[in-house]
Amino acid sequence: MNILSENTAFGGMQAVFSHDSEACNCEMTFAVFVPPQATERPCPVLWYLSGLTCTHANVMEKGEYRRMAAELGLIIVCPDTSPRGKDVPDSLTNWQLGQGAGFYVDATESPYALNYQMETYITKELPALIAGSFRADMDRQGIFGHSMGGHGAMTFALKYPGRYKSCSAFAPIVSPSTSPWAQGAFEKYLGTDPDVWRKHDACALVAAGARFPEFLIDQGTADGFLEEGLKPWLFEAAVKDTDIALTLRMHERYDHSYYFISTFMDDHLRWHAERV
Amino acid sequence: MNILSENTAFGGMQAVFSHDSEACNCEMTFAVFVPPQATERPCPVLWYLSGLTCTHANVMEKGEYRRMAAELGLIIVCPDTSPRGKDVPDSLTNWQLGQGAGFYVDATESPYALNYQMETYITKELPALIAGSFRADMDRQGIFGHSMGGHGAMTFALKYPGRYKSCSAFAPIVSPSTSPWAQGAFEKYLGTDPDVWRKHDACALVAAGARFPEFLIDQGTADGFLEEGLKPWLFEAAVKDTDIALTLRMHERYDHSYYFISTFMDDHLRWHAERV
Repeated sequence: MNILSENTAFGGMQAVFSHDSEACNCEMTFAVFVPPQATERPCPVLWYLSGLTCTHANVMEKGEYRRMAAELGLIIVCPDTSPRGKDVPDSLTNWQLGQGAGFYVDATESPYALNYQMETYITKELPALIAGSFRADMDRQGIFGHSMGGHGAMTFALKYPGRYKSCSAFAPIVSPSTSPWAQGAFEKYLGTDPDVWRKHDACALVAAGARFPEFLIDQGTADGFLEEGLKPWLFEAAVKDTDIALTLRMHERYDHSYYFISTFMDDHLRWHAERV
Repeated sequence: MNILSENTAFGGMQAVFSHDSEACNCEMTFAVFVPPQATERPCPVLWYLSGLTCTHANVMEKGEYRRMAAELGLIIVCPDTSPRGKDVPDSLTNWQLGQGAGFYVDATESPYALNYQMETYITKELPALIAGSFRADMDRQGIFGHSMGGHGAMTFALKYPGRYKSCSAFAPIVSPSTSPWAQGAFEKYLGTDPDVWRKHDACALVAAGARFPEFLIDQGTADGFLEEGLKPWLFEAAVKDTDIALTLRMHERYDHSYYFISTFMDDHLRWHAERV
């Protein structure tokens, strides 16, 4: 692990690291905020998965999570959204595919399969690295994210029962298998069989019987992607008549930006702190 | 005034505007956060002046001021740090001179004098624009800033008695006339007479009799610029045996970054809210 930066903030440490990823066959970068409490005891780990086009840096700079994370004693891990590098396949014409658009799946199709193993990276390789490098209480993990990262957080919560104690999302893509926003990438990463896509789709996973106790979703009504790719009402319908509790909050005038995310960041951090 | 962006945040509005500046003879850009209270009553105005290399955007994205500004009902104005544009003189070799490095002075020397009129812009032109465009209570203004912007805030507080009710700074350049960091720009903007430079130097202004009731200064001890260009102890010495109250807080492990600024932003906003 190479330290790329370390900055004291809110009594804790905001750091950025790079490392050679076995899963992704390239160098990966991630950010970690270590709260002041970690000098005294292991702290819960909260995973933040970012949206399309983002790196680890966007939420680190604009997410405004450190004050409350320092108060609540949460380690915040912010991974990149895809493998990176000149040798990593990319799409120069479609920002919803390739670098910055890993969609948190393990690709099976050439040429993406060699590097685009984001599910393995986020759920296996990086947790092992975090557990070995920080005073992290890995029995107390939560996961959240934004947009494509909300998709990642919700599907991982549903697919790995017991792993995460809490899950929330800002403006998540709840049904990528039916969203034109995501279908292009799913086809390139996973092939053309929609049954395979549905294994990476929060709505379809619930329909197939996957369960997680409760979700918090915040969504802005002025989000330009609401009708096109997000449609949280599909998840509301999916959990109806199940034992999954959903708190879906629609916020007038809020858009898809970090101004929206940062506004409700404190609520999400408290949600997780009460559950991990 | 052209609206470049508008994003709802913390119940208020974070907006970015451009306008043709008469003072600077070019198009200027600035950011304004309007708190939710402004729908009901005029709100105090707090000016944030940024440091070298910054635009209006750095503190807007990384400063984490909106939550507390919305709570306290403060309008936050974040101007650019210099005139901009292809026709505006610049230095390609010295980042402490030219675009991004206006030093909040009115240049008298060619070729800078035509555009580099940042003192007039910040203290006259932009306040008139703010007063005419927002529900701003211009009798309740405060000013603060970072590094070069801390210099700007402190010198304006000292030079315009009664204008600002409060002043604070993060890691300010308190004595630019004696700092190698600033002397190069001062010479290009103001000529070679150090007596002229001292009219834009917080320490020298105090020595010459300028007064402001009280200052709050936060400074990180791990700031790489501390010994080179900041030296807050010079201002501590300058106000000794005057009626100027100085709260100078040195923070172990903190550097010069926005991680430092955002950590203490709440304290500064409360400081101003109590005084404006």
